[in-house]
Amino acid sequence: MYVVHFEPAGVDVQAPAGTLIEEAARQAGIELNMPCGGQGRCGRCAVIVDEGKVRRRSTLRLSPEDVAAGFALACQTVIEGDVMITVPPQERIERRLTTEKQAVRVVFPYPYDPQTQQPIQRFFVSLEPPSLDDQVDDWGRLQRELRRRYGLSALTAHLPVLQELGRTLRQAEWQVTAVVELDTWDRPQGPPRLIDLLPGDQTAVSWGAAVDIGTTTVTAYLVNLLTGEVVARGADYNAQIGRGEDIISRIVYASKGQGLVELQRLVRETINTVLARACRRGKVDPRQVHKVTVAGNTTMLHLLQAVPPEPIRLTPYIPTVNHWPSVRAEELGLAVHPQATVDCLPGVASYVGADITAGVISTGVCDTRALTLFLDIGTNGEMVLGDCDWLVSCACSAGPAFEGAGVDCGMRATEGAIEEVWISGQTYEPTYRVIGNERPRGICGSGLISLLAEMFITGVVDKGGNLNFHLPTPRVREGRHGGEYVVAWGSETEHGRDIVITKVDIDNLLRAKAAVYAGFSVLARSVGLELSDAEQVLIGGAFGQYINVEKAIQIGLLPDVPWEKFQFLGNTSVRGATMALLSRDMRRRVAEVAERMTYLELSADNTFYEEFTSALFLPHTDMDKFPSVAAVLRRGNGAEPASG
Amino acid sequence: MYVVHFEPAGVDVQAPAGTLIEEAARQAGIELNMPCGGQGRCGRCAVIVDEGKVRRRSTLRLSPEDVAAGFALACQTVIEGDVMITVPPQERIERRLTTEKQAVRVVFPYPYDPQTQQPIQRFFVSLEPPSLDDQVDDWGRLQRELRRRYGLSALTAHLPVLQELGRTLRQAEWQVTAVVELDTWDRPQGPPRLIDLLPGDQTAVSWGAAVDIGTTTVTAYLVNLLTGEVVARGADYNAQIGRGEDIISRIVYASKGQGLVELQRLVRETINTVLARACRRGKVDPRQVHKVTVAGNTTMLHLLQAVPPEPIRLTPYIPTVNHWPSVRAEELGLAVHPQATVDCLPGVASYVGADITAGVISTGVCDTRALTLFLDIGTNGEMVLGDCDWLVSCACSAGPAFEGAGVDCGMRATEGAIEEVWISGQTYEPTYRVIGNERPRGICGSGLISLLAEMFITGVVDKGGNLNFHLPTPRVREGRHGGEYVVAWGSETEHGRDIVITKVDIDNLLRAKAAVYAGFSVLARSVGLELSDAEQVLIGGAFGQYINVEKAIQIGLLPDVPWEKFQFLGNTSVRGATMALLSRDMRRRVAEVAERMTYLELSADNTFYEEFTSALFLPHTDMDKFPSVAAVLRRGNGAEPASG
Repeated sequence: MYVVHFEPAGVDVQAPAGTLIEEAARQAGIELNMPCGGQGRCGRCAVIVDEGKVRRRSTLRLSPEDVAAGFALACQTVIEGDVMITVPPQERIERRLTTEKQAVRVVFPYPYDPQTQQPIQRFFVSLEPPSLDDQVDDWGRLQRELRRRYGLSALTAHLPVLQELGRTLRQAEWQVTAVVELDTWDRPQGPPRLIDLLPGDQTAVSWGAAVDIGTTTVTAYLVNLLTGEVVARGADYNAQIGRGEDIISRIVYASKGQGLVELQRLVRETINTVLARACRRGKVDPRQVHKVTVAGNTTMLHLLQAVPPEPIRLTPYIPTVNHWPSVRAEELGLAVHPQATVDCLPGVASYVGADITAGVISTGVCDTRALTLFLDIGTNGEMVLGDCDWLVSCACSAGPAFEGAGVDCGMRATEGAIEEVWISGQTYEPTYRVIGNERPRGICGSGLISLLAEMFITGVVDKGGNLNFHLPTPRVREGRHGGEYVVAWGSETEHGRDIVITKVDIDNLLRAKAAVYAGFSVLARSVGLELSDAEQVLIGGAFGQYINVEKAIQIGLLPDVPWEKFQFLGNTSVRGATMALLSRDMRRRVAEVAERMTYLELSADNTFYEEFTSALFLPHTDMDKFPSVAAVLRRGNGAEPASG
Repeated sequence: MYVVHFEPAGVDVQAPAGTLIEEAARQAGIELNMPCGGQGRCGRCAVIVDEGKVRRRSTLRLSPEDVAAGFALACQTVIEGDVMITVPPQERIERRLTTEKQAVRVVFPYPYDPQTQQPIQRFFVSLEPPSLDDQVDDWGRLQRELRRRYGLSALTAHLPVLQELGRTLRQAEWQVTAVVELDTWDRPQGPPRLIDLLPGDQTAVSWGAAVDIGTTTVTAYLVNLLTGEVVARGADYNAQIGRGEDIISRIVYASKGQGLVELQRLVRETINTVLARACRRGKVDPRQVHKVTVAGNTTMLHLLQAVPPEPIRLTPYIPTVNHWPSVRAEELGLAVHPQATVDCLPGVASYVGADITAGVISTGVCDTRALTLFLDIGTNGEMVLGDCDWLVSCACSAGPAFEGAGVDCGMRATEGAIEEVWISGQTYEPTYRVIGNERPRGICGSGLISLLAEMFITGVVDKGGNLNFHLPTPRVREGRHGGEYVVAWGSETEHGRDIVITKVDIDNLLRAKAAVYAGFSVLARSVGLELSDAEQVLIGGAFGQYINVEKAIQIGLLPDVPWEKFQFLGNTSVRGATMALLSRDMRRRVAEVAERMTYLELSADNTFYEEFTSALFLPHTDMDKFPSVAAVLRRGNGAEPASG
């Protein structure tokens, strides 16, 4: 056993030879960010080995100078003696979330009637106390009265409810409110279940919660089940981010040691935090929340339920569960009423999950006669094409470029991020807007789209994304990693360094947008339609809200249909979960959507590669698909852009 | 905080002033017997305070000499300073159980057919592995194949099964055996539930277990669900005995602090021990046991499920649950397959529990046209009168006399107990038989019945139970507590003390037998019949097996019907549990029995006291009810017995 000493925490731990620094740090209670899930790919867990012997399995993300200075990746370096380690300051996760700003609208296609649509019902009963002449047991007595007065038969209950039953009945002097779930997703015919027994008449309120687990953000709505109203919200970053920023990294992390259990704990803690926050705002005791529905992508739901997600990332990409049985809150450790049913919404495939089926029901794609394209762009681009008669879906790996990762100066859409850029067609000087009006620290996804579009329209880059070094501006220059364009000089930025976009970044963005557009194209081709036939384009997800449609069309990320056909709908997933929480009909409908939606696995689809290659240009090889962009270029900022 | 030192263990614990010695002992890991549940009634937890200050709340069971010698009841004495305590040797619970001797016969009223009667079924499936062309999720794939091949629809599962699903399917290369429960007690229409998924074809075996939780003894049968055969048994004393010998003491103990949790743990440990023993004998891995049924009296089932039993002992004597919902083994901590369903059989009332309903179905009382009296005599006498058309039941508190407690020289029916006595009508000298042919240590229940009958028939006592001091024998004498008869002189006994029966003991026995007989009488009167109309008398329970019918009739414990009408059936409760385990029909039948059996609460019945008073004589006030006894007395050992 060796001693591993951590600074600046000043903590010692004992560990055998071969222990990863990451493991020793966890043992010491030190949180290291590992956005790549501990694969040595992101370099963010670098620490400094001040003294002692270690072995670096990988230094892929470190320069020889870094290694000489003692840097080592905590996830790739094992101790081989007593060591002293300095942990650099870890990036703090920003607490200000864009999703908290968004307005809540849960619009049903029909009026909400809790009596007919809601399976959670409260029943007040005044029981005849037992006597020597009426010797029915407590449980039979309650069942009998609920049957007599409300026609409930075959009422069941789990053990913890029965363990409290006798005491509650006697303390409440036989006047009680039974909180009953009449049916669930997997027991649509019942029998009804007693979730909770409350003293006195407490039929005037009834609470539920809807949760969306995003890879990045977890959102909860506290819902009044009697009115259908969302009374409060909570949102926070998914605490799993520190164990992998994207889905694949999380799956990798989950497959190692106690990784799955740890990831389940982290997302449970996040859910409990946001539920507690929503309940505090709504002035509701979380134990009064008697039902929860959860939407999220397939991997997030596997992690919540601690079902190993490995098969999701291995060909042929099969999840273990698409249609989740109902569980109780105590089985998952959710801090609502322990007997509350927790229903995860059904998904379609490994990469078209319950977040998408929830989005489809909440946006009404499944109800409309208008041909609709529904998409949710994040690390993965998930998309659905269809109407009330048919639905076809696919997912493409856009990579994390639009979330600000994989791009040199990329960052999340938080304060200090450049979110919009304009470039002068004469001087090639940019103007930009920064979130929070601060000095810029980097560029977020919407800023990158805007920047790339402006560079293309003004001829800073050509159709192929190549920088034009002949322009009369110092902003186009050779950088450390090849050509780059300077968006902000160090004198303007918070950290004093230039903010640039490099050729490598541009290629990453081209691949990301090409993957998304190729997805659209394959969907349309699979049903013999053109993208331009779409009568509406509905965009879900937090990222979607901030996209400038014009710019997104100009780079060929979105199809070139009139702007008025686009709608940005924010978190369609949590709204779908809310609808499924409130209504049996919506519950049935989302299950039907998951059943009948056709899923195209793009890795098995040859046309995808063809479409992808065609889309690797600005906006596309085939300019005829983008007439509005062609028009801009024709009238535009100096005719056709320079050809490189 | 004071220091409490225990000898001979040599253990110190710290405890604040006011701590019960019993609590300190538990903290020190020292087991003290508390047969009365810590009420200060039995005196068995006496310890010696060698040094230090204590306060004795009760010394009811201690003489002034005992107190002077330092004795204190651990359950009634609190520490008030540093103390040194000596714990006398605790009575060891004998491990040789009479129930293990008994032959196993589970006789169904029809041939056993596992395919139609057994809800636990195993299905082998060979799944098509997933591919890019067949993207159905693992759980959907398994459901689909079970539906196609075996017509199973709406299959459900609990989370732990899904957590293992993907791994099992892939490791077993998609060849698996699904262990499915088609329906349960509280879900008679299903849906079917996947309990376990085993690699390969494992359809050749299937296991279940039936358990009877007696107040004194816990018995388990390991059952082959494919043949209906009981392949092995296990039995042991209920470890709760140390926390109360009778039901009332257990309820009192359960109401204190963590008493309920502790009693649940103790019975769980006993069940797990006997199940493990049965499985070892049957060479079956306990995790292969996929279903368990449990019978037991109402209090025992409440303690198993940790449902507070207090209301059972408080007027109007209402249990919290008579009809138990199904639970899973992991919810109770039973060491079989964690997803195995555990069904507790239904009871009728606080003192007519699932042990009686199980007895009724296993003895066929509910199926016969012959008027039947079924009884189970222990601390409580539980009895049922009826036939296939009607059933009426009651329970009377016989007290622990027949279990050897509450009687000066009483003991359980283990080695060293006098189990049968004969008294010479000439010399009044007794002959006796001792269990294990050892030197006697005391007298067990059957010995007491035999002794009392012989004393009555030979005139050692009169009709009223009074000793005849005029007889020419030194065995009838004045003892410390009044009159007594010496059964064994100190020179013959193991401990060197005389074994006697006192007038106080005789009065206790008279009250016990009078309570039982009054119960019979009330049952018969309630339906307008005479006890002599009974066409058969079926006696269940371990105690019942050793009763000498002739003697029991002579003291007026059993009704005076011809001996050939009596049958001793041993543990009818565990056999009923076995039948309910094996057959849906039996499961339904026991629920029907529990529903339709009329229960007479004797404390609410005026005729009971009348009958009880009439029965407080040997054999009864009304000698016409006992013609066979009258005949014995007439021809017998010196005509009528002496009259006092």
